Amino acid sequence: MQARTPVTVLGATGLVGQRFVARLARHPWFELARLAASPGNAGRTYAEACRWRAGGEEHSGLGLRRLVNCTPEEAGAPIVFSALDAAVAREVEPAFARAGMAVFSNASAFRLEPDVPLLVPEVNGDHLALLARQRRERGWGGALVCNPNCTTAVLVTALAPLHAAFGVEAVACTSMQAASGAGLDGVSALELSGNVLPHIAGEEEKLARETARILGPLEGAAGDERVAALDLPLSAACHRVPVLDGHTLSVSVKLRGAPVPEAVREVLASFEGLAGRGLPTAPERPVRVHLAPDRPQPRLDADADGGMPVHVGRVRACPVLGIRFVVLGHNLERGAAGGSVLNAELFLSR
Amino acid sequence: MQARTPVTVLGATGLVGQRFVARLARHPWFELARLAASPGNAGRTYAEACRWRAGGEEHSGLGLRRLVNCTPEEAGAPIVFSALDAAVAREVEPAFARAGMAVFSNASAFRLEPDVPLLVPEVNGDHLALLARQRRERGWGGALVCNPNCTTAVLVTALAPLHAAFGVEAVACTSMQAASGAGLDGVSALELSGNVLPHIAGEEEKLARETARILGPLEGAAGDERVAALDLPLSAACHRVPVLDGHTLSVSVKLRGAPVPEAVREVLASFEGLAGRGLPTAPERPVRVHLAPDRPQPRLDADADGGMPVHVGRVRACPVLGIRFVVLGHNLERGAAGGSVLNAELFLSR
Amino acid sequence: MQARTPVTVLGATGLVGQRFVARLARHPWFELARLAASPGNAGRTYAEACRWRAGGEEHSGLGLRRLVNCTPEEAGAPIVFSALDAAVAREVEPAFARAGMAVFSNASAFRLEPDVPLLVPEVNGDHLALLARQRRERGWGGALVCNPNCTTAVLVTALAPLHAAFGVEAVACTSMQAASGAGLDGVSALELSGNVLPHIAGEEEKLARETARILGPLEGAAGDERVAALDLPLSAACHRVPVLDGHTLSVSVKLRGAPVPEAVREVLASFEGLAGRGLPTAPERPVRVHLAPDRPQPRLDADADGGMPVHVGRVRACPVLGIRFVVLGHNLERGAAGGSVLNAELFLSR
Amino acid sequence: MQARTPVTVLGATGLVGQRFVARLARHPWFELARLAASPGNAGRTYAEACRWRAGGEEHSGLGLRRLVNCTPEEAGAPIVFSALDAAVAREVEPAFARAGMAVFSNASAFRLEPDVPLLVPEVNGDHLALLARQRRERGWGGALVCNPNCTTAVLVTALAPLHAAFGVEAVACTSMQAASGAGLDGVSALELSGNVLPHIAGEEEKLARETARILGPLEGAAGDERVAALDLPLSAACHRVPVLDGHTLSVSVKLRGAPVPEAVREVLASFEGLAGRGLPTAPERPVRVHLAPDRPQPRLDADADGGMPVHVGRVRACPVLGIRFVVLGHNLERGAAGGSVLNAELFLSR
Repeated sequence: MQARTPVTVLGATGLVGQRFVARLARHPWFELARLAASPGNAGRTYAEACRWRAGGEEHSGLGLRRLVNCTPEEAGAPIVFSALDAAVAREVEPAFARAGMAVFSNASAFRLEPDVPLLVPEVNGDHLALLARQRRERGWGGALVCNPNCTTAVLVTALAPLHAAFGVEAVACTSMQAASGAGLDGVSALELSGNVLPHIAGEEEKLARETARILGPLEGAAGDERVAALDLPLSAACHRVPVLDGHTLSVSVKLRGAPVPEAVREVLASFEGLAGRGLPTAPERPVRVHLAPDRPQPRLDADADGGMPVHVGRVRACPVLGIRFVVLGHNLERGAAGGSVLNAELFLSR
Repeated sequence: MQARTPVTVLGATGLVGQRFVARLARHPWFELARLAASPGNAGRTYAEACRWRAGGEEHSGLGLRRLVNCTPEEAGAPIVFSALDAAVAREVEPAFARAGMAVFSNASAFRLEPDVPLLVPEVNGDHLALLARQRRERGWGGALVCNPNCTTAVLVTALAPLHAAFGVEAVACTSMQAASGAGLDGVSALELSGNVLPHIAGEEEKLARETARILGPLEGAAGDERVAALDLPLSAACHRVPVLDGHTLSVSVKLRGAPVPEAVREVLASFEGLAGRGLPTAPERPVRVHLAPDRPQPRLDADADGGMPVHVGRVRACPVLGIRFVVLGHNLERGAAGGSVLNAELFLSR
Repeated sequence: MQARTPVTVLGATGLVGQRFVARLARHPWFELARLAASPGNAGRTYAEACRWRAGGEEHSGLGLRRLVNCTPEEAGAPIVFSALDAAVAREVEPAFARAGMAVFSNASAFRLEPDVPLLVPEVNGDHLALLARQRRERGWGGALVCNPNCTTAVLVTALAPLHAAFGVEAVACTSMQAASGAGLDGVSALELSGNVLPHIAGEEEKLARETARILGPLEGAAGDERVAALDLPLSAACHRVPVLDGHTLSVSVKLRGAPVPEAVREVLASFEGLAGRGLPTAPERPVRVHLAPDRPQPRLDADADGGMPVHVGRVRACPVLGIRFVVLGHNLERGAAGGSVLNAELFLSR
Repeated sequence: MQARTPVTVLGATGLVGQRFVARLARHPWFELARLAASPGNAGRTYAEACRWRAGGEEHSGLGLRRLVNCTPEEAGAPIVFSALDAAVAREVEPAFARAGMAVFSNASAFRLEPDVPLLVPEVNGDHLALLARQRRERGWGGALVCNPNCTTAVLVTALAPLHAAFGVEAVACTSMQAASGAGLDGVSALELSGNVLPHIAGEEEKLARETARILGPLEGAAGDERVAALDLPLSAACHRVPVLDGHTLSVSVKLRGAPVPEAVREVLASFEGLAGRGLPTAPERPVRVHLAPDRPQPRLDADADGGMPVHVGRVRACPVLGIRFVVLGHNLERGAAGGSVLNAELFLSR
């Protein structure tokens, strides 16, 4: 039995940070060595600083652990997971990469930098090739790998096998997003109860740009690769709805060759992703295809298999773009902590 | 001062029936003469038979009124409003029309019959011309006029001015519908709380068919008109969300000439509908255009002006179909009782 | 027709401040002269600074009004309503009273000062007599009158007629309080959705202390009165539940003489309060007694008559204390803005 | 390794039936041999007849199992769990007991019969002694054992150790009950959303009667025992609140000797129940005492340890009865299926 790799969680007290902690506290490859938080919380115990909302045992049994500052000196580890806010991440994450550590970040700060892999692990693992350029140009001994916005992660996991099989030519989608996507105190009960909020700042732009980037092919010579972002018309409208966990997207998609719904269902259901490669966080089936007309539902389906699969239902003909379906995924797992941990597993396995 | 016209409400105990009662109990043109219900409730008082959920005074002060059966003998009046279920309506409504009464129905039973006006009052009042054929072919002394499904009513009120100004060529939409659209006990708390239900039986089909019919032009010689349903590709996905009142639709629309968002906003905001014609239920502005990015919201906007306007927000460019916006309307008012009462007012005013 | 008295609202942007504005924008006695807010918002328009959540017309039509600072110089008026936080109120309110203005405050800062009337208008209007001492001892030209905590206001309005008729000897109660009691962003959707929060900081203590004070008799010579707080054992447990507006309390009460439920119902239903005295905000019946076993309900009953009455239901025998009932009232109206405005009307009418 | 005992679930399609199935599909002592349902569902597969809402694998992997009728002939097994409605249970359960089977019933039909043990397993296991009389007087070869109403089960689990240590002299309580207590379609979303329903038919009476029975001592000679129901003044008010699972009760209790809160906490925390006796469903600690002032909360705590413990928080002095606390338990597990399965384990272990 091999020694487990020490890892750190930056921003351990927020909703995504908690999910990282819950996953890593019992991970077969990783040993959760450090919990880091903002200066105001450093020195306090995890239980004092963190309202635990990630289920399972409170604070995953680490409630007495002392929080450290988000610096390589205090929080250094070979693998670092970041659940920091974008503004803080922009300052802090490079310091860890410069110090030789591999940073897996859920923050939006560096997602669209040309030398940073923006990764959905089952979809574009080959984008890790950008790290050669990243090391060379930035002079980092370590690495920085990002996962996308939570809504993007859910959408792309369903689009990727369709893009591989047919080619995606246009997408129109409408999201119904969970409260937990906005963080612990991100939406007040008074605003969201019995309501639909028809706007989430920056979300639609992220969804379009990140999807085009993730589905884009790698180009250029070995060691000098670039991602050519897909030229994909993508129309999005993002809504917050009174749901706790799980983003639902209603999607219309134009596929090359105009396949019938049955063909689309088959491609989705047979998408293997990283299953069978021994990565502990990889779901057996990254896309679960539902046939019951009233599924998927966030409250019934988001938590299945640790929140790692996305759930596709109601695949049918769309009179405007060709194919219509609904896709649901767990915003904090597939869309954040779980995706990032799987990114690290993929990184280590290569 | 003129005498008010006696009217009846068929199906007065359900959610839509209650809204009819609340509107008609104080209507300047109509006198609420009869409340009719299913045989099981006939003979009971309105208060005994009806859990009042329409706001204002309980049972609009009519709690002691005795319910009668849904027959022309017991419930006859010059104007009859029907909130019956489709199966019952199919039997009952023709009896009233045959007996010389004008029936304004919220039921789906006859909506697509070629000689029945399917009316959104501000949109296709000219379809009342079908009544000539209806009288002739069915031999009815009265008339039957339908209003559309609640979701259709909301969508069409926003599409109609755009169709008139530009021509609508394709529509892709996603609805987030309120619990009250399913009736008093239509959705259990256990199913809907914190959840999104991604299917409403028959709703998407109704939305496509009824929209094409309502926007279709009247053709043929006077007294022999037909509606030529629009040949409109319309893709719909309908969801139930934890909202009490107010259906929200996110809409992408392809308009002839590809107008810019500003032009679309102007057309919507300047749509006059029936304002200024003295109809008591006509809203001053049938379409309210919101500029705040986080509006409309069902809990804040659905009830404005008696629930009669629809609210359009976030009008913007759509990279797939050209224009994208969100539209919200009150499913029980614009989408049911209010629309039907306004249909009757329009009918009487001609 | 008499000129209306100019009034100010301090803290006009919060939930209670908005309710003050909505009531005062169309008040027959008062003219809303000034809207005051925190220094950060002074100078902005009301529409810019305030997310309007009080219903009716947005910002009651005062969206373009400029906000001023909470100083007597900028915000002075003969009558001043305060919706400030306690800490700010402690500094700000005396300045207005010193400057000769009559302050009606919803803040908790001065509620228990011996020379400050803590008033539920229908219950202990005679406590206004404390103002003589207040003026004398503080040297204020104006006055400061407080209304109680929202939960206290609801409970006391029901207890007061029972105390007058029988004498209240002990109370055990459990509250189920609405989200709006915590302010605009006071409770996050993630915490409250589908949940019960079994603690509201300081609420139970306020409920006990303020109830004892309000029900306490006035003692001492004219011009030198004191309130002798009731020696009342009151056990309270306060919960936050997923309700928007309206606090519900389940109450067990021990009454002198152990009256039967029917006698209790009669006393409550015949409580006249200030009805008939021409005060514009006084409800016709301060206590509405419901006989239906499933009433009152916050969503159906809290808004009745502007939220001013409290609703009592399920009056029955309690095997432990004698009488049990449930009471519901609107926390922002009876429990805050409406109560405070009625206090001012009562003050002016004497 | 011993063979597992075959068991049946009667009423397997409802919410409680599903919880039985989920527990029994992987039980170390029991083999789930038969799923029985109403005549309308007999012959259908479990997946066809049952909307699965019990979490985990859909239908616990038994979706293809054919449902049988609720007769000893079709559904017979040594151990039978009943999730039937009271009216059906009254007819059906005796047939199984007469046929020699041991029936563990969640139905209310026989709970108060003098020869039927009404059992909370950790509390009054000795009441199983009533079975001697039951067999003798009814001539049954089998047995019938009931568990109480869900609210009673939660309350009694907290009261029992206090009664043992001090003696309970009076109880006043207020419940805030979850939607799932009313069954799959028991409460409509339109009624419960953002609301408190202040009445649950029959619940308060059950709570008083069943609590007095369960806490009552066994009297009489061996083989001829009776339960002497406690003479306990118990005042209850039961409310439905917008929560999915988990009933919360705010409790005031009068204990002999007036112990201080710290003593009450110690007694509750040290209550061992059946832990250590090798019963698979027995929780390690039947009562979990929380010290954080904002706990327990139904969404955070109800599911812990399979929903079998009850959670007590905010133990404090009550100025009216002496001690006040809040108790939470899972209505479908501690309050129904889990309690009943533990009853059967206790029965078999003796």
